[in-house]
Amino acid sequence: MLTYDLESRGNLARYDYLYRCIREDILSGRLSAGEKLPSKRALAAHLNTAVVTVETAYAQLEAEGYLRAKEKRGYFVCPVEVRPTQGELSAPEPERPEPVWKLDLRGTGGGTEGFPFSVWAKLTRRVLTERGEQLLRAIPHSGAPELRQAISRHLYRFRGISAAPEQIVVGAGTEYLYNLLVQLLGRDRSYGVEDPGYSKAERVYTLNGAKCVSLPVDGQGVPVGVLEESGCQVLHISPNHQFPTGVVTPIARRQGMLRWAGAGEGRYIIEDDYDSEFRFAGRPILALKSIDQTGTVIYVNTFSRTLAPSLRIGYMVLPRTLLEVYRERLGFYSSTVPAIEQYTLALFLEEGHFERHLSRIRLFYRERRDQVIQTIADSSLAKRCRVRREEAGLHFLLELDTDRTDEELEAAARKEGLRLSFLTQYSRRPDQTLKHILVVNYPGLEVEKLKEGLEVLAGLLDR
Amino acid sequence: MLTYDLESRGNLARYDYLYRCIREDILSGRLSAGEKLPSKRALAAHLNTAVVTVETAYAQLEAEGYLRAKEKRGYFVCPVEVRPTQGELSAPEPERPEPVWKLDLRGTGGGTEGFPFSVWAKLTRRVLTERGEQLLRAIPHSGAPELRQAISRHLYRFRGISAAPEQIVVGAGTEYLYNLLVQLLGRDRSYGVEDPGYSKAERVYTLNGAKCVSLPVDGQGVPVGVLEESGCQVLHISPNHQFPTGVVTPIARRQGMLRWAGAGEGRYIIEDDYDSEFRFAGRPILALKSIDQTGTVIYVNTFSRTLAPSLRIGYMVLPRTLLEVYRERLGFYSSTVPAIEQYTLALFLEEGHFERHLSRIRLFYRERRDQVIQTIADSSLAKRCRVRREEAGLHFLLELDTDRTDEELEAAARKEGLRLSFLTQYSRRPDQTLKHILVVNYPGLEVEKLKEGLEVLAGLLDR
Repeated sequence: MLTYDLESRGNLARYDYLYRCIREDILSGRLSAGEKLPSKRALAAHLNTAVVTVETAYAQLEAEGYLRAKEKRGYFVCPVEVRPTQGELSAPEPERPEPVWKLDLRGTGGGTEGFPFSVWAKLTRRVLTERGEQLLRAIPHSGAPELRQAISRHLYRFRGISAAPEQIVVGAGTEYLYNLLVQLLGRDRSYGVEDPGYSKAERVYTLNGAKCVSLPVDGQGVPVGVLEESGCQVLHISPNHQFPTGVVTPIARRQGMLRWAGAGEGRYIIEDDYDSEFRFAGRPILALKSIDQTGTVIYVNTFSRTLAPSLRIGYMVLPRTLLEVYRERLGFYSSTVPAIEQYTLALFLEEGHFERHLSRIRLFYRERRDQVIQTIADSSLAKRCRVRREEAGLHFLLELDTDRTDEELEAAARKEGLRLSFLTQYSRRPDQTLKHILVVNYPGLEVEKLKEGLEVLAGLLDR
Repeated sequence: MLTYDLESRGNLARYDYLYRCIREDILSGRLSAGEKLPSKRALAAHLNTAVVTVETAYAQLEAEGYLRAKEKRGYFVCPVEVRPTQGELSAPEPERPEPVWKLDLRGTGGGTEGFPFSVWAKLTRRVLTERGEQLLRAIPHSGAPELRQAISRHLYRFRGISAAPEQIVVGAGTEYLYNLLVQLLGRDRSYGVEDPGYSKAERVYTLNGAKCVSLPVDGQGVPVGVLEESGCQVLHISPNHQFPTGVVTPIARRQGMLRWAGAGEGRYIIEDDYDSEFRFAGRPILALKSIDQTGTVIYVNTFSRTLAPSLRIGYMVLPRTLLEVYRERLGFYSSTVPAIEQYTLALFLEEGHFERHLSRIRLFYRERRDQVIQTIADSSLAKRCRVRREEAGLHFLLELDTDRTDEELEAAARKEGLRLSFLTQYSRRPDQTLKHILVVNYPGLEVEKLKEGLEVLAGLLDR
């Protein structure tokens, strides 16, 4: 007779424990195929438990295919493969920790400074109270109407873009939206990406099976001639503050790009506007989308950079001509951003918190930038470097006077615990004009560490 | 001299309004290429405003490429393309509203019943208070450690799966995770999907450029022979409660599937466990992943079904052998679920709210199901139908006695405002055994509407 100690069951229900014991005996071969199990009544008496316990355990084993019930004859063990060993074999492998840097010019760092967390928390609480259980219902695939309305108003006021709420698609970050874009526009097309440029977009396109073409950037962005010769059909650019060069594409070239897009079937421009909010004089550069009359510009932006990295909310503006195919092809996807965040962000935008926050952090970052630039001017490095493209964005360029190659400097600095980020590291082509130029992501920099780091760096410039 | 009425600027800053006016004049051709603009001082005097206002407007126009400053000579209009018309041309096109059904057997409906919203709201508030600004920082790409730990414990207790937290990847819903899986396993492989089956998975794979093969399901799931002949490398199955047939794959066939996966290089099984929680007798069917010793099973599940559709939180368990390539290839992606939801869900799991919720809704759905089945038994349809596969899940099958084809019945019912869902609609092959079988998604059904609908349906069974 099967004997198990039901008192050893811990927190498990009796039937559950019994089920596990018998299953284990079948999988280990202690009970073999064809063997007849004791009757429910007999086993229950033997184990000093209720018949219903055994009944439930047997029913579960039958449902999972371990036992077969034959009418009026009882339960029999099914033929199963007997388990040779326990568990997966390979050893656990912990995640590699990020190295700790004395100074990290590459790390995006910061990004949460000045975020009015208490306002956000208050709005979240308000949404919980006011919307209540309505928050549980699924929201439309392209986002909550309230949020799309608020983004539409914001885009009009802040970026000069006239976009109806139905043109706006909200998603869990821009990387997710790039994925959708390949599925929308097709992976059989060639995607032109800026060189030097933002590598994540290229990675996402490549991972999605699309072919990427590198387009060299000059002092105004991608030249239209280069674009025309490249044979690419989809152009991914950051015309308002190119990453990492900081170049702004002037109106005439923008018009040239739009002409290019309008001239060929199925050509599109993806305008990546990820840090246009951080311009320190005047107003942000007007979006390319704002002058798009060809209906070829897809505008993409995120709140991860302006609000907080942990808030994965990005959005895109689709041209009207793409709405039909978008709904047809991708309309079955569920919205990827939880309802609570969508409604909270809608309130945050509508009540003016976002614009106030932007004004505040623009000031904050301007001061931080000035402080970092002053620290450089006061350091031993000062005579051997020049700051460039510091008018906007959360990084600037630092041109170094050195004879060492970028690779040498990078490796030497790494040994000293400094993480450098050179323009050449964002490029695929050998270009003399890109050399010896550091990309300084300043929001996360601490002045004291920076001072020390600059002295170390100054000492590395010569062999 | 340029003349603009600065008093018409509304909420805009003076410089911003002036900038917009001049830009408009350049784009409309009223100011033409090469034309010299008045000096800052002269224009400021003319418009009765401060010099700094004009200066800022000119600087903005220069930054955007509308003007060029020539040293000591002033500002000149750059050559730009003059705008022919306003805005995008195609007319707005509103989203099509969903039809309103008198009775909808297909709609997933419901899904938020019994959700302890007040507990969730309380936990959210607690997370806001306790974690504070820490919530703003980016979280690891595969999810917050606390949540992965909680999921790991839940999987062990509830699904028999031993998975270390580092094997768990949290993402914004299962559809998003399917996208990641194609990028992880490759789109050059052939993905085997169940027929009849859950069409969204197939759609996502196809949209990602992968080839899908339909694998016919019998009374135990996909037969191993079919699998072997299909030539597929990745098998997507729902062995614990197949959608839509409700079939449970018994242990012996599971072992056969694992043997198949272990026998070929790069073979994987994606175990879609989307509604295993809803089993109304005994305990949930043990997951295939729980007996996987080959390291080939990727387990996928979601909280959208068990908690609320608006909470886009899914997760997958990767075999250890895939962790390295996952980090290498997809580790750059940001986590798609906001920090607040991740920490709230972690608490919800750790404090036992989830298990209590599951017990409650299992009871709730069982009663709802019984009520729906009783309503069918009491209707005129009763003599011409049989309920099947009602032991688990949020749908059951209803076999109809009718000579009309499924297409005819579906169309006739549609005219009466009834939305029917036939097993044949989930299949790509003509299979006699699938005919005349309705899939009844019962959670959203209202008894009164159901009564009326059943009478209408009974009247349609004969031509």
